[in-house]
Amino acid sequence: MKKLKRSARLVEMTQYLLSRPHTLIPLTTFADRYGAAKSSISEDLVIIKEVFEDEGMGELQTHAGAAGGVKFIPKMPKDQALIFAEELCRQLQQKDRVLPGGYLYMSDLLGQPSLMNEAGKIFATAFADQEIDVVMTVETKGIPLAYATGAQLNLPVVLVRRDHQVTEGSAVSINYVSGSHKSIHTMSLSRRALKEKSKVLIVDDFMKAGGTIQGMVDLLAEFDAEVAGVGVLVESGEVESEERLLRDYVSLATLAGVDSKSKEINVKPGNYFSK
Amino acid sequence: MKKLKRSARLVEMTQYLLSRPHTLIPLTTFADRYGAAKSSISEDLVIIKEVFEDEGMGELQTHAGAAGGVKFIPKMPKDQALIFAEELCRQLQQKDRVLPGGYLYMSDLLGQPSLMNEAGKIFATAFADQEIDVVMTVETKGIPLAYATGAQLNLPVVLVRRDHQVTEGSAVSINYVSGSHKSIHTMSLSRRALKEKSKVLIVDDFMKAGGTIQGMVDLLAEFDAEVAGVGVLVESGEVESEERLLRDYVSLATLAGVDSKSKEINVKPGNYFSK
Repeated sequence: MKKLKRSARLVEMTQYLLSRPHTLIPLTTFADRYGAAKSSISEDLVIIKEVFEDEGMGELQTHAGAAGGVKFIPKMPKDQALIFAEELCRQLQQKDRVLPGGYLYMSDLLGQPSLMNEAGKIFATAFADQEIDVVMTVETKGIPLAYATGAQLNLPVVLVRRDHQVTEGSAVSINYVSGSHKSIHTMSLSRRALKEKSKVLIVDDFMKAGGTIQGMVDLLAEFDAEVAGVGVLVESGEVESEERLLRDYVSLATLAGVDSKSKEINVKPGNYFSK
Repeated sequence: MKKLKRSARLVEMTQYLLSRPHTLIPLTTFADRYGAAKSSISEDLVIIKEVFEDEGMGELQTHAGAAGGVKFIPKMPKDQALIFAEELCRQLQQKDRVLPGGYLYMSDLLGQPSLMNEAGKIFATAFADQEIDVVMTVETKGIPLAYATGAQLNLPVVLVRRDHQVTEGSAVSINYVSGSHKSIHTMSLSRRALKEKSKVLIVDDFMKAGGTIQGMVDLLAEFDAEVAGVGVLVESGEVESEERLLRDYVSLATLAGVDSKSKEINVKPGNYFSK
């Protein structure tokens, strides 16, 4: 136990709360930690709550009663999220991103931890009120996004593999059809990675017709688990409505078109902003 | 511009600094942001610095002069890192982790964002004084660790693929020999992922003889880039000295032995703690 002045306590409590999102912290934890009266801690929390909410950092929920305490729920206000999405769109529209076949080079953006953390915070906001046990993605490029989302929601991440790895133990494999190419692929998940009845938030970097994500949904059925939500960073809007396998998802950006001749790319904020 | 009281300012500045590690922030940024005198901001920073350093959260470096400001360098003290490593060892020693072939199931631990963030903070501490441009890993399981390290060091992450992906553009591929099995594999890196002369911190989840990491080192040579350091979460100590391809690295845990019959696993803190 250490006695801290209010000013030092505010700094310490701020970092303590920020590093423990979606975690209930009893007031006694703070009172013991700083050798302060609960009433002083409550006053500190009022100050912190006000700054967090004014700054659009998230909510500080107070739960009364014996099992009560305070919980930091990271949330990004929609106007701030839109600024992020517009900047993402601007960067995605750089002409030199167009690869042969009309694919888009995105690895430089996906390689920025701070950008992934912002996107993760938006997903954590979008799904803050859902009951979720784990975040799931399939290797490879969605992984940083899934971890960023898991970190903000204080949830573990489960990783679906493209092939069965010796380091994963026994696994359940399924075949799935990648919607846009109609080609068949395999994905597998370690048996011990997911408990039965788990509620799962699926996250990925890119979705076209939704075949890969539908594969994850089918895999969840094998585990008797259920989908709590689907979040994708970029969706392709270039999909015929009847080809779309998945309709209920959140996207942060929509790729409206790539002209592989003129190299023009058209990206708009995703469906999260029209909901 | 908003006028904030000192108490609110401390909360705001704390979160501002924590979310921008290894970033120089001019005092005028804060002065403008809060409509406060630079002298008040300096006083605030003294309080924050004291708490950060007392709590083992890191350093708050002050740079004087016109181009000056303040920079938060996340650092975990070695005693705190050792507590982390010992807990990691304890969890790795759970008997049910042993897979056929003596492999160890680690995906549940690698799937915890908070655990990855702690490990990333230790690597950021170990390599805080190196000049580094990017963090590199090879898919798949080292990815969360690389991003956690990159986030703490404010650096981008570059991802080496096991095969050449259409979404990566033109790439450089090399073959490498996995030391323990003497089998030959391929890894590739997109040409546009890495600038020439880059200084690269290599991060991975597991290292046995070091063949995979040596492969990344060889790949760097193709880009005229250089190794700034190597960090692995777990190294296998079950390697004959002459088989070890790599000698200069930091490990957080050492797997001393796995008995696939008795399922006994022996894990000790890594070489970071004996340096």
